[in-house]
Parts: sequence; structure tokens; C-alpha cells
Amino acid sequence: MNKASRIFCPALITPKNAVVKQTEQLSRSQKLLTELGLVKSGSNGTYQIMPMAQRSVDKCIDLVQSNMQQAGGQKITLPILTPTGLWKKTGRLDGDISEFYMVRDRSGKQFLMSPTHEEAVTAMLATTSPISYRQLPLRLFQIGPKFRDELKTRFGLMRAKEFLMKDMYSFDVSEETAMETYTLVNAAYDRLFKQLEVPFVKVNAATGIMGGSVSHEYHYVSPVGEDNLLQCSSCGFAGNSEVVKAPASCPSCNSSDLKEVRGVEVAHTFLLGDKYSKPLGATFLNTTGKPQSLVMGCYGIGITRVIAAALEVLSSDHELRWPKLLAPYDVCLIGPKQGSKEQPEAEVIENELLLNVGEICGHQELLHDDRKELTIGKRLLEAKRLGHPLTIVVGAKSARLDSPKLEVHTSKGETYELDFSETLKLVAEHSQHKKSLERGCFQSETEESKSRSVGHQL
Amino acid sequence: MNKASRIFCPALITPKNAVVKQTEQLSRSQKLLTELGLVKSGSNGTYQIMPMAQRSVDKCIDLVQSNMQQAGGQKITLPILTPTGLWKKTGRLDGDISEFYMVRDRSGKQFLMSPTHEEAVTAMLATTSPISYRQLPLRLFQIGPKFRDELKTRFGLMRAKEFLMKDMYSFDVSEETAMETYTLVNAAYDRLFKQLEVPFVKVNAATGIMGGSVSHEYHYVSPVGEDNLLQCSSCGFAGNSEVVKAPASCPSCNSSDLKEVRGVEVAHTFLLGDKYSKPLGATFLNTTGKPQSLVMGCYGIGITRVIAAALEVLSSDHELRWPKLLAPYDVCLIGPKQGSKEQPEAEVIENELLLNVGEICGHQELLHDDRKELTIGKRLLEAKRLGHPLTIVVGAKSARLDSPKLEVHTSKGETYELDFSETLKLVAEHSQHKKSLERGCFQSETEESKSRSVGHQL
Ligand SMILES: [Zn+2]
Ligand SMILES: [Zn+2]
Repeated sequence: MNKASRIFCPALITPKNAVVKQTEQLSRSQKLLTELGLVKSGSNGTYQIMPMAQRSVDKCIDLVQSNMQQAGGQKITLPILTPTGLWKKTGRLDGDISEFYMVRDRSGKQFLMSPTHEEAVTAMLATTSPISYRQLPLRLFQIGPKFRDELKTRFGLMRAKEFLMKDMYSFDVSEETAMETYTLVNAAYDRLFKQLEVPFVKVNAATGIMGGSVSHEYHYVSPVGEDNLLQCSSCGFAGNSEVVKAPASCPSCNSSDLKEVRGVEVAHTFLLGDKYSKPLGATFLNTTGKPQSLVMGCYGIGITRVIAAALEVLSSDHELRWPKLLAPYDVCLIGPKQGSKEQPEAEVIENELLLNVGEICGHQELLHDDRKELTIGKRLLEAKRLGHPLTIVVGAKSARLDSPKLEVHTSKGETYELDFSETLKLVAEHSQHKKSLERGCFQSETEESKSRSVGHQL
Repeated sequence: MNKASRIFCPALITPKNAVVKQTEQLSRSQKLLTELGLVKSGSNGTYQIMPMAQRSVDKCIDLVQSNMQQAGGQKITLPILTPTGLWKKTGRLDGDISEFYMVRDRSGKQFLMSPTHEEAVTAMLATTSPISYRQLPLRLFQIGPKFRDELKTRFGLMRAKEFLMKDMYSFDVSEETAMETYTLVNAAYDRLFKQLEVPFVKVNAATGIMGGSVSHEYHYVSPVGEDNLLQCSSCGFAGNSEVVKAPASCPSCNSSDLKEVRGVEVAHTFLLGDKYSKPLGATFLNTTGKPQSLVMGCYGIGITRVIAAALEVLSSDHELRWPKLLAPYDVCLIGPKQGSKEQPEAEVIENELLLNVGEICGHQELLHDDRKELTIGKRLLEAKRLGHPLTIVVGAKSARLDSPKLEVHTSKGETYELDFSETLKLVAEHSQHKKSLERGCFQSETEESKSRSVGHQL
């Protein structure tokens, strides 16, 4: 169990005599994350993840990893330092390189602090013993920091210079099987984004600097998005405006019902062909034993960006709201204020709840706000700002051993007055919903509300 | 379950016409890791972790993390890029900086690719709202890549330029409570190293570039170690020769029974005092509300180095041997060769074993060597080189549905002929031993052998 009194959550303060130099544009969720002490700004464009947000990051890593493994992905680690020589071979240092961090070692050899690893993984395959067609398809992924020296960092974690990415690379024998892999990984992405329960738009995208032929982007729709998307209200078709240049009607169904929205790109998939395997000499032995270029795909998910953008979509100006599977804790339990005459009786209820709730949702998923020197009101306000899915208040009213009344707040803004067993039932429903999401069973919001059967809403 | 036919494990080949330029010294375990395709050399001094070794790394991360959390540690992430300005304030750029990777961003601002994070974490605390003495002690840790531009990289993962570290930083109100924290974290380290079951030596160490007053190092004793240690055979006292300069007798018990051994440093703990908090202005509010310098400690464990050094100590020239808790898989099951007349019957046994063994040890811990086009001998040789704790062979002899005989090999070099239930019992004993290690219950090797009660050793 986690005690609020012990958690390092350094709320933002501005020293009285400080000249506030707003070097960076912050969105509402990023402002909340910073004010509440979940994320701290390091030097311009880098971020420090504090313990509560780290829990969300670790949950996101686990979820992405499990989906990649289900799609046949094998986890590896490639060095952050990639020799620039490899990037010269693929021509990616010929264009604008101002976004790359480059560093030289003591011998003068130059490296990139990798923003992505197509060259590194392809060169790795080019120097192994020849892969047989029987070993393909091959799907390798990693989860680690990436670097991009952005001209303008914005919205905190959403566009930072150092960020956490999942990158997967696929290797196939032909364009045809590569397309099958592409479809399969896209299906894994679809499932992941459904698990996060944040509305997303999948669009046909430009291949840009990556090269290749087919590409899709996954976007969260938000005013702070940096991409313009075109969406067809009739058939659901969507495209990045870069690709679908202002058509009068939908390229898919011809309807004129097109609207433009702003999107935050949270994931990207590319069919790369032999753009990297050819110059770097990454081949496999085909059925006749002859070497042939591997056909590649690459698939990125911005872990920290998914969290930041999901919060931006779900949160209000004053309260964070998390995807259920990424909330730092499932349940926050606020104990009675010290010194009140009901304290001893309320504490009996509190201890019983700690035990029972912890057993239902997992003790690690329970945050106990044990700061009894603070009023319940102050702690409840903070709990609401932090956006815990369920917050249970053990207040003066609860202190009736025969029939305690507990105030339960959900992150959707509902408040219930529940007895002991109704409270546990609500916790159990939340845990069950999380489990079905993890299994990939999706339920609509309406069904979910219908299935909630306890207590009465205040 | 994991199928050997699908796992990317690129065995090392040297092209026939290649001039082998041995740029780096490899130890026996590192040679095996490379030859078997568990680790690949990136550019000079960096390493690529392949899927099987990645499993070991992930297990090590989980184990270290759980021990740090038990010691009250809270997980965070600090950026890899640390502004060099912070290091100027603490004087750590005044000495030899040839081991640091430094990089400038597009505005010309200089950063270190952090080899450690004392400055970053202290500066972070200096810019939060003042911490009250009530919030202390505070222990923050992270697990991530670190960078050191070594003059001479050696022994693969053991001394690489980019490596994975766990680093914890503690903050206390006084030297006295900082010493309590120091003792507590050292106890967590002791437990961790006992869980790994590799003999380790804990020595009094020099504080060196870190500064501070008290320091201990954890070493694995190995001829490839780069430190000279002095050990007293009478009382067990040990010291780094840098600190304990060639005494005639033991500084602790006066015995003259001192021997010198070589050690690989796998972990290090420091009591830092206010060496960092003072220049960077990291204070807390004491009981009278006055700001006072935080008293710090720092605690590192080289994750990739622990794995590499443990392998070096445990392995032979031809076979890897892993700490039980870090083996990529618990059990390898070698299926029958295809085309033999016993194949159909043996496959019935094989499928039953896959199900039952997987249920006992966890399906993710079972590696199924399904490459039936290869002989059992060839696959068994590879399994032995990979060092799986248990390897079960379903061969021609097994193909008796009434009483199958299975050959079971342990990584200690024992071979058993067992029936079905005896085999499951051996797997269960291994899993139970792992579980007690995870709980921190330690059993000596002798007790362990005594408690093994199945079959007869061949
Ligand atoms: Zn349409
Ligand atoms: Zn002695």
C-alpha cells in the first residue's frame, strides 16, 4: 500500500521574487501535471518524471509491451549511440539535421543520440549469420529514450527533446508478407488504443523522411494538436491534410461532409520496403539459397506522449482524468481528520476498508491518504485534481460501526453515498472493468453505466 | 510459451574473408554470450541486447526494483541530458573529463550524457517547494542507461560505454539519520546479492570522485576483475587495496592471514553528506522552520554489469550458467526428432509435458525447442551452452506411453532419468526455490541438494 504522506510529489512553487520567464507553452493537462508535482521541467525541453507519474509510465510500458508480444514482437535493446556513418549510408544525414543531437567520442568518432533506430537494427541484421526465409517474419521491438532537438518544445511531455518511445521493426521475405505483418501490427495498435479508451483517429499519412510506401498515423484529437486532419462524417475516412490536400469531397465515399480537426500524433506505422535493407546490405536466404533484401516495416508509439495527450483529451482545466489502465492508482482512500470526536470509530472503518479494498484492487493500486493533519476537504480537492478513478472518503458520517456511510467520488464527477459492501462492489466493478480491458474485451460507456448497480448517486 | 524456432538468437559468424581485428578483450562468458547470439557488439564499446538476454535484463530490473521499493525507494526518471552548468557548480568538471560524453543543443547549450545523476537530482530538489523534515527520509531511484567514454572497453557488457544502471539517491535531516538510511539500503543490497546466489565480497571503499565520507563496494571475485581486494581469511574483513594499502596484518582482527583477490565492482554505496546539496542549495525546513542542507547518500547497481559478471563467475569455458533468478528461461523442453518411428508416441508425451511443466513454472518460463529438423544431440548441446537451469529431453526412450523415461539435465551438470511425475517434481522444486529466493529466504547449497529427493542421477 502507498501512503500519501510518503509520496514525493513536489508541487510547483514560484519563488516570490522570481521573474517568471514563460519559455514554454503549456497545455492545461501539462500545467496540472506540473502544478501537482507529477512532472517537473528539467532544462528546457526535458522532463523529470516524479513517482506518481512514473507509475503511469510503467503501466503504459507494460501494456504496450504485452500488445507487442501478442503481435509476435521480441524485445531487445539497441544502444542510444548510433554511429553517424550508418545514417550517411541511408542518406538520412543529407537533409536538415538540425534536430539531431550528435556527439563525438574521445577518438573523434561521431554518433547520433538516436531519434529512431532503422539504421541500427538493419545494420545489426546485416552483420549476423544469414537469416533463412524460414526464420521470417521477424519482429523486434524496444522501449527506451529517444532524442530530438526540437526547435520549439511545447506542451510538456507532449513534445519534449527527450522522450520515451516503443519502436518495433519488422522483417519479411516479400512485399506481400510485409503487408500481412503491417496489417497485424496495425491491429495490435488498434487494440491498444481501444484499451486506452481515448477516442483516436487513424489516418493515411505521408511517409516523409522515413521513406517507404504505406503509412498510418494514430491521432488524439485535441486543439493543441500540431497536425491538421480531415475527417469524413459519412464514412469515417480520415487523412492527414499533408497527404489529402483539401479535397472538395471525401476521397473514399465522395461525400462532401468533411471537417478539419487538430490531432496529436501518438503512433505511426510505416511499410518501408527495402529503403534501409538495400543500402545497409541486410538480406535473407530465399528458398533457392540466394541472398535477397529483407522487406521492412517500422512502428512507433510515443509512450510519454500517449500519456500526455490522453490526459489533455480527458482532463478538464482543473482536474486530471486518466485512461483507466494508466491511472497511477485505482483507488484513493482518505482517512478521517485527526482530533475529531468520531476519529476512533472512523479509524476502525478505515482499517477494515484498507484491508478489503486492497485485496480487491491489489494493495499496490490503493493510495492511502493518511495525512490526517489535513482536512478532508483539502485532501478531497487534491484527490479530485489528481483524478483517481475512485476516491473513498472516511469522514465523520462514516463513523457508525453498525452502518457506515461512505462518500465515494469517481473521476467522472459522480458522487455516491454507499455502505461498506456497496463500496467494495464499486471497487470490484472497477477492477473487473480493468481486467476485461486488459484481455481486450471492450464495452461501451453506456453498457458500463447500465452494469453499475450500486448505491444512489448524490 | 516460447518456441526456439522463432527466437531471434543470431549466432556469431565471422565472414570467411574477414580479417579478424580483435579490438576488444573478451572474457569467457562474454565470448559465449556473443557466440550464442545473446549479445551483439554494436560500435566499439556499445552492445545490443538480443531477446534471450533481454529476458535476463528485465528479470534483473524487476528484482532490483522490488528490493529498492522494499527499502522505501520511489521510482522516478531523470533526463539523460544534464546541463553541464550543474556539474560546474559541484566542481566535477574540474578534473579529468575525458570519460564524459558532452553534446550541445541547437542553441549551443552544453549537456552531459549523464554517467550519474547526483547533480540532476539535487538540483531538482533545490527547485521544489521546501521539503519539511516530516517528509524525510526521501529515497528516489531510477533505472536507465548511463554513459562513460571509457579509454578501454573490456569484457563486453562488463565495461561498456553505454550501460544500464540503477541509481538511488537518499535525503535525510542529519548525518545520523543518513547513516540509518545508508545501513538500510546496504541491507537491501546484501539481500539482493544473496538472492543472486553468486558469492560476493563487500569492501570498504574509497569515496573518490563522488566525495563523502563512508563508502562500500560490492564485488564479484573473478580473475577478470579490475580491482585488487584484500580479504582476511580469519574474520572476513575485506577492503579495496586502494583504501587498505598493503597492511602486514588485518586492520580488523590483526590476523596475518590476508590474501589478495581480483574483484569486479557490481555495486557501490556512498554517504555523501552535503557535498552536492550545499553547492546546489538543496535544503529542507527543520523543526524550527529554518532551511538546512539535506544530507545525502547515493547507491548504484550496474544492472548489465551484474549479469555479465555473474555469468563470468558461474560459467565454464563452454557453458553459461546463470543466477537462478536471472536465467532467461527456467526450463527448456527438447521435443523428439522428426521422422523417427517413435515420433508420434513421443509427441503425446511432449504435449502433455508442455502443458504440465508450463503450468508449474509459468508458460513464459518454458522454452520449447521445437526445431525437430535438428537432432536431439545438437539441440541438447546448444541448451547446455545456453545454461538453462533444467533441460528436459523427450527422445526415443521417452516414447513409452505407459512409463515414459525422460532425460533431465541441470545446469550444474547433473543428468537424471526420470518418469513423468518425477520430472514435474523437479520442475516444482526449482520453482519453489526461486519463490523462496524472491521472498528473501536463503537456503544453503547443501540443504538444497538434500531436499532434492527424486529419481537417480545418471
Ligand atoms: Zn467518406
Ligand atoms: Zn581479520
